[in-house]
Order: sequence, then C-alpha cells, then structure tokens
Amino acid sequence: MKIGVVLSGCGVMDGSEIHEAVLTLLAIDKAGHEAVCMAPNVEQSEVINHVTNAPMKEKRNVLVESARIARGRIRDIKGVKGSDIDALIFPGGFGAAKNLCDFAASGPDCKAHPDVARLIQEVHRAEKPIGAICIAPALIARVFQGKGVTLTIGNDPETTGALQKMGARHRECTVKEFAVDEKNKIVSTPAYMLARSIKEAQLGIEKLVGKVIELAQVHQTA
Amino acid sequence: MKIGVVLSGCGVMDGSEIHEAVLTLLAIDKAGHEAVCMAPNVEQSEVINHVTNAPMKEKRNVLVESARIARGRIRDIKGVKGSDIDALIFPGGFGAAKNLCDFAASGPDCKAHPDVARLIQEVHRAEKPIGAICIAPALIARVFQGKGVTLTIGNDPETTGALQKMGARHRECTVKEFAVDEKNKIVSTPAYMLARSIKEAQLGIEKLVGKVIELAQVHQTA
Repeated sequence: MKIGVVLSGCGVMDGSEIHEAVLTLLAIDKAGHEAVCMAPNVEQSEVINHVTNAPMKEKRNVLVESARIARGRIRDIKGVKGSDIDALIFPGGFGAAKNLCDFAASGPDCKAHPDVARLIQEVHRAEKPIGAICIAPALIARVFQGKGVTLTIGNDPETTGALQKMGARHRECTVKEFAVDEKNKIVSTPAYMLARSIKEAQLGIEKLVGKVIELAQVHQTA
Repeated sequence: MKIGVVLSGCGVMDGSEIHEAVLTLLAIDKAGHEAVCMAPNVEQSEVINHVTNAPMKEKRNVLVESARIARGRIRDIKGVKGSDIDALIFPGGFGAAKNLCDFAASGPDCKAHPDVARLIQEVHRAEKPIGAICIAPALIARVFQGKGVTLTIGNDPETTGALQKMGARHRECTVKEFAVDEKNKIVSTPAYMLARSIKEAQLGIEKLVGKVIELAQVHQTA
C-alpha cells in the first residue's frame, strides 16, 4: 500500500518534527508498505534558529526543506489525489500548526492550507484512514470542524481546549498509545506533546502507523 | 553512558543524513544511554536544494542546522572533551565529507576540521570506541592516516580506493552488518552507501550502536 506522509518543513520549531517524521517512515517501511512523502510548495511562515529559538531573517520553502527528510523523493501536495494513496499520516512539529494551517497563530480560528484540506477530505470521503501525530490533530480538528471527531493532543489545557472549541472530542492518551475514532478512521498519538525521549515517541508512532495500516487494509478488503 | 553524536548539518546532500542521525539517536536511547549531540560552529560548505540537487545561493551554519535534528539540545564541538563522553559516533550524509572534512572535494588529500580531529584523537587515546556510518569512515581514515585502520564504506571503487590511499584497510560489508577494528575500537557500517530503504539502514545502525556501546562498556569495566 501507499501511505501518504505530509511533511511541513524540516525542524520541530518551524517545520516537521524530524524524529516523528523519520519514525513514521521507518514504521511504514518495516510494515512492508511505501511512504509517499509530500508537502505544500509554499514559503514557511517563519524560520527559527533551533539553537536560540529566535526567528531568523530568511525565507525557506516548505517543499524544499521537507525534501531533506524525504531524501529528495517528495511530491507537491497540490498534485496528489486521494485516489493515489491508501492512507494519510501527518507527523507533528510546529510546521503542522504554522505551515499546514495557522493554528499556532490563530488557535481555534485557524485556516488549513487549501490543498491539505482538500486531500484530507478526499481521503476521508474514500473511507481511507488518517493518522495525526503530536500537534497535527489540531489541523484534523479544523478540517473536520463540527463533526465531533475524537482526537488526542497531549494534556496542555489551552491546546486541548482549542481542539474542543473546534468541535472535536479530546481523549487523553499516554505517549505509548494512540486514540482512535473508528467511525471516522482517524488515529492520533501525542508523541513529543508528551514524549521525554525519542524511544517514547517511537512507541506511540509505531502503534499509530500499525493501526492506520490495519484500517487501510480493512478498507481494501471491504 | 554518554555517547557523543557528531552532526554535520541537516540533510543528506549538504549535512547529516537525517535518517541515519535519527536512527543513531533512537538506538542509543533504546539501549538506555544518553546521546550528546554536537557539531562544529562553522558555515556549511554549501547549501543544496534537496528537490533539484542544485546549490542554493544562501549560507547556513552547521551547528544551527544540526540543532534541528537534536531538537535544540546540542553543543559546539569546540567545547567537548574526550573525557566528557564514553564513545563517539558519526552519522553519514555529505556533511561528514563537506563540513567535518573536505573529502567530497579533495578525496584522499582531504583535511579534517581541527576540533573534529582533536576530539577523535582524544577519544581514541582514552581507548574509547568510535562509530562511523555511511561516508563518515572517510573522515576516520583521514584522522587515522597511515595507522592501517579497518573500515567499511560501501562498494563504490573510487570511494573505497580513496580510503585505501589514506592507508585504511577496506572490508566490504552488507548493509545489515558492521565492520569492526577491535584493536582501534572503530566500528563502521555502510547504511545509505548501500541501503535501499530506511529499514535496511536501521539494521546496520542499530547493530553498530550496540557494538560501540559494548566496546565502551568493556572500557569502563577494564
């Protein structure tokens, strides 16, 4: 199966959380499936110095930086259709809340990038599963606003509150587990919203990828 | 134990190979040890667009970009002493051959970054082990020039020939295994010199990290 992985840059503060993205690719490959990396071809909302956490006066492109994680094998999300893939997974990192939508700036009033929203809707309408890691469930809550989807996003009250304002149900979940909305085929795990180390993040991500693949297989055989 | 991990930027074409670096951090954490990430505080030799493989007209700093992989927890290698760590591991990526030394441009006539060479020598003199992944054995061959160290670096004749010109012995090795020079306590594995996918790279890297830790433990109990 082809599992879409939507990247949002390269680095936790302004792009994809690198460990989460790589662990997602590892889990997909170990399960015997193909990762299809993609990202929007847009300017990053900002560039952050990861030593000082200060903004840098430069511009970077989300697709070009995401290609670092994908080792060059990456597609512009604009050209990806729901029928091209069997499932869709969003690693976390602030890029998911700054470049795929503007949740980091606008909270529950955020808007999703149009092609990201379109692809999520196409995948969902085809009854294929979606996985969201770390902060990425905020994007899912926005696109499914008002549909009462069940998600997990760590335990920060402001973040979980924002999710609920968008009409999602929040289910608290440990870093080693995932939350699943079986009806909507949406799987989420907190990863670095809670993880204190990379091995903790891996536990939940590997299980999330396994559950997404299971749901995609159920879809294929249905 | 504290396992030093020397990064060289963030992205296979101009810095650390991201998968190799993350898989190294994962293996260290899973083994119950602490990774101490570090990088030289110097300008990258170049910045490559990972979609087109073309050079970009901008400047980036090796330490600042490496911090993306380390999630901000990184030290300037200048301040790291051999006595601070129990072992030292070099993930690959062209950064190891462009920023830690200039092997990519100068082949067997390359020079190593002075602080990188100093730390390697301090660790070696203290009889602590060193691991080198992918292209990083070229750096090790340079620093140990003439000492007849045994290394593996894939199977490209030009690359293995350059290693031998620096006085290293090349031992061909599959992606799932590592080569070990027991006398010099140097462990190497081909990773993306040969790997066709991330799970293949992981097999050798996990074993390399395990062997480096074993050699460090022998040192501790000696």
